[in-house]
Amino acid sequence: MSAIRLALVGLGKIARDQHLPAIAATPGIELVAVASRSATLDGVAHFATLADLLASGEAIDAVALCTPPQGRRELAGMALSAGKHVLLEKPPGATVSELGPLVAAAQERGRTLFATWHSRFAPAVEPARAFLSEVPPRAVRVTWKEDVRVWHPGQRWIWEPGGLGVFDPAINALSILTAILPRPVFITSAGLDFPSNCAAPIAATLALADAGGLPVRAELDFLQTGPQSWDIVVETDRGTLTLAQGGAVLSLDGQVLSALPETEYRNIYKHFVELVAAGRSDVDLAPLQLVADAFLLGRRTLVAPFHE
Amino acid sequence: MSAIRLALVGLGKIARDQHLPAIAATPGIELVAVASRSATLDGVAHFATLADLLASGEAIDAVALCTPPQGRRELAGMALSAGKHVLLEKPPGATVSELGPLVAAAQERGRTLFATWHSRFAPAVEPARAFLSEVPPRAVRVTWKEDVRVWHPGQRWIWEPGGLGVFDPAINALSILTAILPRPVFITSAGLDFPSNCAAPIAATLALADAGGLPVRAELDFLQTGPQSWDIVVETDRGTLTLAQGGAVLSLDGQVLSALPETEYRNIYKHFVELVAAGRSDVDLAPLQLVADAFLLGRRTLVAPFHE
Repeated sequence: MSAIRLALVGLGKIARDQHLPAIAATPGIELVAVASRSATLDGVAHFATLADLLASGEAIDAVALCTPPQGRRELAGMALSAGKHVLLEKPPGATVSELGPLVAAAQERGRTLFATWHSRFAPAVEPARAFLSEVPPRAVRVTWKEDVRVWHPGQRWIWEPGGLGVFDPAINALSILTAILPRPVFITSAGLDFPSNCAAPIAATLALADAGGLPVRAELDFLQTGPQSWDIVVETDRGTLTLAQGGAVLSLDGQVLSALPETEYRNIYKHFVELVAAGRSDVDLAPLQLVADAFLLGRRTLVAPFHE
Repeated sequence: MSAIRLALVGLGKIARDQHLPAIAATPGIELVAVASRSATLDGVAHFATLADLLASGEAIDAVALCTPPQGRRELAGMALSAGKHVLLEKPPGATVSELGPLVAAAQERGRTLFATWHSRFAPAVEPARAFLSEVPPRAVRVTWKEDVRVWHPGQRWIWEPGGLGVFDPAINALSILTAILPRPVFITSAGLDFPSNCAAPIAATLALADAGGLPVRAELDFLQTGPQSWDIVVETDRGTLTLAQGGAVLSLDGQVLSALPETEYRNIYKHFVELVAAGRSDVDLAPLQLVADAFLLGRRTLVAPFHE
């Protein structure tokens, strides 16, 4: 089979840091075009918008959408209507409901829709899932604290409706959590801190549970200076399982069980190539659903305005 | 087949106004017990809580949960674990995710779980759906404006997390909308007015669309004095279709097409009896999903505190 001819839509930080090297390293897929209002890439056809690209007749098979989530649905719909496979950066959209029609469109047209959750491809996630399928979790503590000024410079869209605020990083934790726990979890209470000048929260505290009453607590902060935390700690009858560094390192009572090199986006593109070959889609909305439920159930507190 | 022996859990306004007369009027089901901390019913076994009822050995086949939504999941889980069929008042829970495990539990145990949407059983809803399956909608305007002080006296839970505020009535509109439109809709923007002393909005403006770009606008207000509005107006190529009075009356360009007596809750219990007989569940989460998405995507505005 010839390689999938891919167009990248959006050429911001995540596209440059992660997508470009991952695409280059993945057999079966090649970058042939970019749609971006502001940026170009040497040696790759350039268009200002996806609409321009599709109208041009440039031969592409698939698009990867790396623009902010607020416009993702419209772009995905346009690409699917044009018969292209679609890879969505996380979160897959600005709402849960908007994904249903996209899934239906992909199915109708026999195209692949892949809602990626990059953290699920972190190297220690699968070992953690395997461990917890054997040894039941007794309690879970998620600590996801990073400095938005370091990791999201200039990304004003994060504070707009649909931008998710602190849930933009924290949805990574939820994507891991929903992958490694043996049973589905749901939000039982949430506290959300909204800066007075932002439409999205800057910190949150969540309580979750599963049908068996497993207690899960999550502390989320977007103003963490000093050491950054992307950790999930699970108490079990065999000891304390710690999935640290965003899913990179797994340890049990301090003894490292798994610490392999990070290859999240290469695994994403490998999976995308496999999905296209198999004619399948992969859309799991559980992480975004938990965020929507946290907003639905959350008690809001106004906090100091955020200025970058 | 002998009648379903039903217990009502919660004996507040909706239980007395609607459930009791509907149960009495429905063949195949009979009320045998009530669980309520504060209220009793002559001639019906009484328990303070559902847990007490289940522990008592009182012979029941099903429970109808008429308590506030915040505690519904726990009660439903308890009833399903005890092998009872469960009917849920709307909204079916405080979050979308919490329903998944309940659906799974009902299936595992071969019991019926029925998430009711009473407005879908309003008499003009099915005629409206049938009309719009033939004549495509071009634009939709929802106006749902009522006086919370008249319709929800003393219901402080409405303003707590999970109580939904103005979406407690407006989810009825969304339950109709998702039943009558030919294609799924999703939220594209939302403005939410939160009283400064409440965890739920008192007014909202929604924009929705379907995959074909159908424009849907909704104006929701919980402080409407004077005339109350529960109307959905649909522009079509054959004229303006108006579903008024919460789904009771359907007219086209002012000419009445359908105006039958209201029998929402009797239809609910008739459907429940049928579901139990057929061994099926009926759980459609689309209306609650739209509310969660409105909270997720909504831009919040603080407004004057609400005092009943």
